[in-house]
Amino acid sequence: MTSVGPPPEGVRILGIDPGTAATGYGVVLRSPTGSVTLIECGVVRTSASEPLPTRIREIYDAIVGLIARHRPAAVSVEDVFHGKNAQSALKLGHARGAILLAAAHHDLIIAEYAPRQIKKAVVGTGNATKDQVGFMVQQQLRLKEIPTPADAADGVAAALCHCLIGSFPR
Amino acid sequence: MTSVGPPPEGVRILGIDPGTAATGYGVVLRSPTGSVTLIECGVVRTSASEPLPTRIREIYDAIVGLIARHRPAAVSVEDVFHGKNAQSALKLGHARGAILLAAAHHDLIIAEYAPRQIKKAVVGTGNATKDQVGFMVQQQLRLKEIPTPADAADGVAAALCHCLIGSFPR
Repeated sequence: MTSVGPPPEGVRILGIDPGTAATGYGVVLRSPTGSVTLIECGVVRTSASEPLPTRIREIYDAIVGLIARHRPAAVSVEDVFHGKNAQSALKLGHARGAILLAAAHHDLIIAEYAPRQIKKAVVGTGNATKDQVGFMVQQQLRLKEIPTPADAADGVAAALCHCLIGSFPR
Repeated sequence: MTSVGPPPEGVRILGIDPGTAATGYGVVLRSPTGSVTLIECGVVRTSASEPLPTRIREIYDAIVGLIARHRPAAVSVEDVFHGKNAQSALKLGHARGAILLAAAHHDLIIAEYAPRQIKKAVVGTGNATKDQVGFMVQQQLRLKEIPTPADAADGVAAALCHCLIGSFPR
């Protein structure tokens, strides 16, 4: 018989905080017992002087690169636009579309979490500040420092949120 | 010497009116003398009951299919969100991101026109109604009827706009 369960070392989760100028990401490993380790985090930056199609292609290509290197089981993407400005929301939508498309093209599980859900899962309250999120990410992943910049920490928080409240096959 | 000018029969332009539920498109042929003929138009529809990543993947795949079949020289995409609602703008941005990405992945020229620019180019006034746009599309392309549904006519109008005011190599 072929084993069809999750790999014995656990599964990788790619968490993403989308943005046109800066998309934060974090890759974590979730062990079968539920413990979580940080593998990599960072930020994909694009230049405002580039045309929008070039910028979203850069974001798409970067996410495809992360998926190819880490083979995550799922992608966890921050969900909702915080602001009220339609033009900013439209731009953010372009970046988010590119990210969801990269995940869909690799037939990955896509989980979307609202900012409040992520804060609640990681800190225990939906009203947590950025500093509290950073601190709890550091604590829960046993890191020497809070991941920087803040966008990278937000990407890690999205990945950690999915590990804590997402569903996983046994 | 190798000929590097545009093909003798002219170039094809793919015009797109992006939307999450309905993306209208029109493919036109612009002859070297500047006359424009409609090749195909239609609407890519996605179902609101599908997850958003599936819907934007369907839009991306449909645009890639049109590019593969028609080999357009340029893609002309309607530019600006009309409404004020940030949530609708975010959703529209996802669809628009998928469309720009499909064009960027094929290294096509991407032209973006505001709705007012398209109306001004096609009808002569930026305040034209949908009916006026449909009527002028029909007249200029010598069609028996106005293309339907309206989203398809808007895609054709975007393509026609680029033919009328875009730049083309001689």
